[in-house]
Amino acid sequence: MGPGPINAHPRVLRAMSADLLGQFDPEMTAYMNEVMQLYRPIFGTQNRWTLLVNGTARAGIEAALVSLTSPGDTVLVVNFGRFGLLLTEILGRIGARVETVEAPWGEVVPLDAIKEAIERTRPSVVATIHGDTSTTMAQPLDGLGALCREAGALLYVDATATIGGMELLTDDWGADIVTGGLQKCLGGPSGSAPITISDRAAEHINRRKHVELGLRTDDLGDGDGLVIGSNYFDLGMIMDYWSEKRLNHHTEATTMLYGARECARIMLEEGLEARFVRHASAGQAMSAGLRAMGLSLFGDDRYRMTNVTAAFIPEGVNGENVRRRMRDDFEIEIGTAFGPLAGKVWRFGAMGYNARKHKVLLTLGALEAVLRAEGHGLSAGAGVDAALAAWDQA
Amino acid sequence: MGPGPINAHPRVLRAMSADLLGQFDPEMTAYMNEVMQLYRPIFGTQNRWTLLVNGTARAGIEAALVSLTSPGDTVLVVNFGRFGLLLTEILGRIGARVETVEAPWGEVVPLDAIKEAIERTRPSVVATIHGDTSTTMAQPLDGLGALCREAGALLYVDATATIGGMELLTDDWGADIVTGGLQKCLGGPSGSAPITISDRAAEHINRRKHVELGLRTDDLGDGDGLVIGSNYFDLGMIMDYWSEKRLNHHTEATTMLYGARECARIMLEEGLEARFVRHASAGQAMSAGLRAMGLSLFGDDRYRMTNVTAAFIPEGVNGENVRRRMRDDFEIEIGTAFGPLAGKVWRFGAMGYNARKHKVLLTLGALEAVLRAEGHGLSAGAGVDAALAAWDQA
Repeated sequence: MGPGPINAHPRVLRAMSADLLGQFDPEMTAYMNEVMQLYRPIFGTQNRWTLLVNGTARAGIEAALVSLTSPGDTVLVVNFGRFGLLLTEILGRIGARVETVEAPWGEVVPLDAIKEAIERTRPSVVATIHGDTSTTMAQPLDGLGALCREAGALLYVDATATIGGMELLTDDWGADIVTGGLQKCLGGPSGSAPITISDRAAEHINRRKHVELGLRTDDLGDGDGLVIGSNYFDLGMIMDYWSEKRLNHHTEATTMLYGARECARIMLEEGLEARFVRHASAGQAMSAGLRAMGLSLFGDDRYRMTNVTAAFIPEGVNGENVRRRMRDDFEIEIGTAFGPLAGKVWRFGAMGYNARKHKVLLTLGALEAVLRAEGHGLSAGAGVDAALAAWDQA
Repeated sequence: MGPGPINAHPRVLRAMSADLLGQFDPEMTAYMNEVMQLYRPIFGTQNRWTLLVNGTARAGIEAALVSLTSPGDTVLVVNFGRFGLLLTEILGRIGARVETVEAPWGEVVPLDAIKEAIERTRPSVVATIHGDTSTTMAQPLDGLGALCREAGALLYVDATATIGGMELLTDDWGADIVTGGLQKCLGGPSGSAPITISDRAAEHINRRKHVELGLRTDDLGDGDGLVIGSNYFDLGMIMDYWSEKRLNHHTEATTMLYGARECARIMLEEGLEARFVRHASAGQAMSAGLRAMGLSLFGDDRYRMTNVTAAFIPEGVNGENVRRRMRDDFEIEIGTAFGPLAGKVWRFGAMGYNARKHKVLLTLGALEAVLRAEGHGLSAGAGVDAALAAWDQA
């Protein structure tokens, strides 16, 4: 019950024990095409180029940024937590000129401030996190794409922590690339990064196209842009691999593809709306329960992610002892924190397969017992009762 | 029965359906430590830093090269096939000055030629492929490390196509980084890249260390070298993550780690020697069978990989029709070819779980029937009989 990775859905694990297929077997390429189709509604997009990067969520982020950005390009990062910092780190290594527009941890960046920063810095790419688990805040993205388009910038959104749990509106936001991971609200294991790429971004990337020497033929022309600084993360080559050209690039990670496919199938069977409501109920129940136990929550209530909640560690309580007892006595993992919040808050996730009533209630019950064992007095039963009531109201 | 990806061992698939664990759960970190231990004998090394890169084999290659090489460094590539070309492609994108020493497809590069090229180009890194499936040749590596050491260069070896099937002697070769993949002779799915890093290479990489902003504390100092041009592939950060520091980087791909662990356990249970003999027998049987059917083999017999064999497509036979019939009628996939060999040869693998007597015999029997159906006359039974005899002699 941390902020991810979480328990995978049992169906996903079963799907991942299926026999492998050859890389260009028609059955395999049909699965690849099916995955493209399954992820479009999950991303809220009609984008043709909706596929998987073979690596963890962080691989998806780097693939997007290195493919969109050439050295010397100005990129504006909307930074409100650790993963905003990660974007600046990755961009710095790529050789981008990084500008930031920031909010203190626990808040989000107002659209006006982003608008002002775009005007001031004239970036070619704007990059942001949708939900940053380090602060539990979700950045509102309505209208951001329009601002970018006016300024001639492309918009990148990392939705690792929200995909599968909160609504993604790639097309409505006007986002050009959105990336995710399986290991949070999609209820799968880490190791595959779903990505969607707008036609506008694909065109931009294809101008940097470079076909591998070992594969080059006369009819596969290169673009005239600067070659992308990574082979593995070259989204142009990855699109060629997922297209009907089926140009060999990496060897698709078949088992991870089976997992990604099953995550999406489960989500679409449940229904997007029902799934978002379930996550919202779990988040509300968790918040209500923690508050009823006398804990204060971190961050601005209005922008709280539905799937992860941070609570301050009460004075006199050793946060790591609590985490250890939770794990040792109850087999429940809760999250620690990074940077300015390290040692100050715990983070409670309710993501994907874990966003379920009984898991929230059991976690709160266990936490109460552990806090009591650690000598922190609190009234018995309040957390669970409040969570139950909040779930049913949601 | 192509040159990989191949059928995974059923035990590997079962291991991959196990429940997930938290990223820093002691059970998970114990598995990570166990994986480090399991892969040392497989790489033929005592290297402490023996771990997994989270991506396909190509991710391991790029991680090694981007971590070893700074822009402007000279790298000498020993190039004898498509995957040598891939090394030059990746290095070019990183900004290395690429020099090559080459052999025609079907041959290997003599050590003398490499020595001369090292003296001429004075590289900081020498990079080579161990076995290049595009040509089916295995480059001899004895003595190469000593040459590199004398010249002050680091040695990188890509063993994707040989790990688990041919002997790797990382320490004896004097190789500084060796990388692999699961999807060939290790009998697992694509998506995890085992890697081993010498202390010398680790020291070189750690001089380029840079701790992420969101994680930085006073006692985690940066090196004074040029920051590595990729965050995801920064082996310094990946070593910190796999060390007792457990510094958060990516979220380890748990299911792929289970798979990689099971691949290694199966290999060590079988015994390295027995496993190499099994691959050699399969390769010999395949070669003998193909020859007995009147097909000519491609490449220098002395340097043929034990686990993949290329045979010329006989005149008048449509190679793609044969591959389609093999797949449609017999559910057996055989490999096509790249570059100068495209349309000229088929490639027959006998890797990992597929390096078994019955699979080689069934493949040859099927090929005979398919060739006959395609109007290519040949004497019935010769291939299978010759393969059987060759297997038992091996």
